[in-house]
Amino acid sequence: MHNIIMKNLLLIFALSCSIVYPQDYKVEKDRIIDLFENLKKFGVNENQGNDRVAYSDYEIQARDYISKKLEKTGARVYTDFAGNLIAHYNPNNSILKPILFGSHVDAVPNGGHYDGVAGVIHAIEVLQTIHSKNISLNHPLEVIVFSNEEGGLFGSKALVGRINQQTLDVVNISGYTNAEGVNRLGGNADRIFEVKRNVGDIHAFLEMHIEQGNNLYNSNTDIGIVEGIVGLKWWDVTVTGTTNHAGTTPMNQRQDAMIAASKFVLMVNEIVNSYEGSQVGTVGRISAEPGVPNVIPGIVNLSLELRDLSSKKISMIYNKIIENSKIIEQETKTKFSFSPIDAVTGDPALMDRRIINIISGVTDDLGYSSMFMPSGAGHDAQSMALIAPTAMIFAPSKDGISHSPKEYTDFEMLEKTTNVMLNTILKIDKLKLD
Amino acid sequence: MHNIIMKNLLLIFALSCSIVYPQDYKVEKDRIIDLFENLKKFGVNENQGNDRVAYSDYEIQARDYISKKLEKTGARVYTDFAGNLIAHYNPNNSILKPILFGSHVDAVPNGGHYDGVAGVIHAIEVLQTIHSKNISLNHPLEVIVFSNEEGGLFGSKALVGRINQQTLDVVNISGYTNAEGVNRLGGNADRIFEVKRNVGDIHAFLEMHIEQGNNLYNSNTDIGIVEGIVGLKWWDVTVTGTTNHAGTTPMNQRQDAMIAASKFVLMVNEIVNSYEGSQVGTVGRISAEPGVPNVIPGIVNLSLELRDLSSKKISMIYNKIIENSKIIEQETKTKFSFSPIDAVTGDPALMDRRIINIISGVTDDLGYSSMFMPSGAGHDAQSMALIAPTAMIFAPSKDGISHSPKEYTDFEMLEKTTNVMLNTILKIDKLKLD
Repeated sequence: MHNIIMKNLLLIFALSCSIVYPQDYKVEKDRIIDLFENLKKFGVNENQGNDRVAYSDYEIQARDYISKKLEKTGARVYTDFAGNLIAHYNPNNSILKPILFGSHVDAVPNGGHYDGVAGVIHAIEVLQTIHSKNISLNHPLEVIVFSNEEGGLFGSKALVGRINQQTLDVVNISGYTNAEGVNRLGGNADRIFEVKRNVGDIHAFLEMHIEQGNNLYNSNTDIGIVEGIVGLKWWDVTVTGTTNHAGTTPMNQRQDAMIAASKFVLMVNEIVNSYEGSQVGTVGRISAEPGVPNVIPGIVNLSLELRDLSSKKISMIYNKIIENSKIIEQETKTKFSFSPIDAVTGDPALMDRRIINIISGVTDDLGYSSMFMPSGAGHDAQSMALIAPTAMIFAPSKDGISHSPKEYTDFEMLEKTTNVMLNTILKIDKLKLD
Repeated sequence: MHNIIMKNLLLIFALSCSIVYPQDYKVEKDRIIDLFENLKKFGVNENQGNDRVAYSDYEIQARDYISKKLEKTGARVYTDFAGNLIAHYNPNNSILKPILFGSHVDAVPNGGHYDGVAGVIHAIEVLQTIHSKNISLNHPLEVIVFSNEEGGLFGSKALVGRINQQTLDVVNISGYTNAEGVNRLGGNADRIFEVKRNVGDIHAFLEMHIEQGNNLYNSNTDIGIVEGIVGLKWWDVTVTGTTNHAGTTPMNQRQDAMIAASKFVLMVNEIVNSYEGSQVGTVGRISAEPGVPNVIPGIVNLSLELRDLSSKKISMIYNKIIENSKIIEQETKTKFSFSPIDAVTGDPALMDRRIINIISGVTDDLGYSSMFMPSGAGHDAQSMALIAPTAMIFAPSKDGISHSPKEYTDFEMLEKTTNVMLNTILKIDKLKLD
């Protein structure tokens, strides 16, 4: 209900500042199906999952296929030094800043056929529609297929200048370093830092993705309008008690790190749940030392992950957890220590409110149901938001499953999200966003 | 206070049924120190710990030293087919059943100089005293040094017929199988089943050991009178929830196996504490699947260990845990499964009440403080109790530490416990225990 009220308010605002078109353009579902069925082939395995990991032969084959499709629109198709495949479409030789849209085609091992690929299919079909209907545009368009998204948003980070030599040396799941992989894709690791684009270089960036959660599918909603990509913080948590003989140490003389760790897990859950909002907190990893049935653990190591759209809220929750850990320390005669894992820390990325409004209006015009939501997962849009007005839309994913052969989104939904993408891009093209 | 009252009652009983001696014999502290310093040499390492693991060269050397000491008493010293070193002392050619006493000299890697060895030192010194003072006895005596205690009470189990071919094939920490190890010690694995002694073959068995807990040291008590060795049950516990994305799965849609496991750990602790008595319950091992910070664990595996002197109480507590796990299943939408680990299951072994009474009387006669207590750890006495009236006494161990180079018991305490052993054996010698 909250979302609906907000949406209506935003809609009024959107209508008042965007140019209203006489007609909504529509994409072609058959071409979407054709793209899907062809791209699926590159990496499909015996589980009906996909093994198209970054830098693999499968990925190279998929990109060849995509390049040929894109070239048919008259776009200049090339791979940048960071291995990002780009189709620059500028039939009118516009000198305005480009509108970028796209996603990735690399998958996790035994992943699905939608994560990333769906967004690339959308981008191709949007360009195909614009080209085939000969729709006139002010801005150049760039369809982009980012390199190595699953390995840490590599290609989009390179594009916004957030990689370094260390990032290039990281060995990917394929066995190649990022430098080697980028060269395999037709990039040039030696010149990779030249791809960096700056704030003001791009008119807007748009990405479509499957939800990777169950909010849309569960509520039978067509379109997820992403308000922001949540920030992510990780900590290593160590609980130190006293290792002791499980047979000879009376219950009241124990300093059992396992008891303290269990209280911690439940406390984290309680605190995260005690605030309004969509923040999440997870303890996903645990180990005990020495970790045998007949010894009281002296040490338990855990992970703590917090995500929210607001960095401030993450800090607030973290501070509350620290505070409550002190109580557990006293109750259990143990000690807690927290060590942030900076490598994976990500700040929240808010989507551009003006584009959100346009998307909301387009969705309503097309008669689709929609929902505002955060993205709990990371996406290339998170990088792009650092330098350009950025927005994302989600399609429902059956049962919220992702990173699995069971990923599924029906073609009708993909058609709807592609229609939203197309008409949003057409509207953005007419707007000044600086 | 409870213990003192009980002790006094038992004392009255003990005095009324045992023969009161005009004098208490005393052992010689210097010989105890000499035995300790010499035995320590076999396996001492750079941490001042001991590496005299079962079947090692160190153990063979220690046994050679012990054999020579024991032979000086006129005892017939031999190694039985199970690798148990035995000194049969029978100067009067008695045809009565022997009184056995002893412990083990094998250690855990980087263990201490007291666990096991202290009991062997006691046994040697008791025999040395009886021999040197020419004390006349009705029964033959047998000092016994059991083989491979740390690897699962091997020698004592062989003596009571509780091993099989599989036990012989188990590879010990030394790298030798039990069969190979037994042969190294001078036993004969091919004839090992011949060593079995039956119910009624032994007049009594006595063992002295360091406490491996902090009850005596903490309360400044000289002698621990063991009432029984606790039974031990282990279970593998598996909690099954649903693996899910930690970023995109809202808190209220999770089936988090980690939350359920944490509730389980606290519930076990609460239930074990809710009963009067010395029972203990421990969760020492835990792991989560997939076990990464950004995935909600779908599976958590834990161990559950329960110990008590009463099998019935262990069952009662276990049933209560099962019952409460069902509540956690409902609260967390997860499933629990329990699988007993039979390999390590041990039934409680109660010590012989008549010998307990004698020990208590002897302790008081000698003016030593004492305390009744269960043994939370396993000992060879546990095997021996299956076929003979058995008792154990404990010496205080500094801070309750064991299986560590930090094990420490002062010589005054070892002298006191040896005096108790000596006088207890002399009293048992005069008693009919059938």
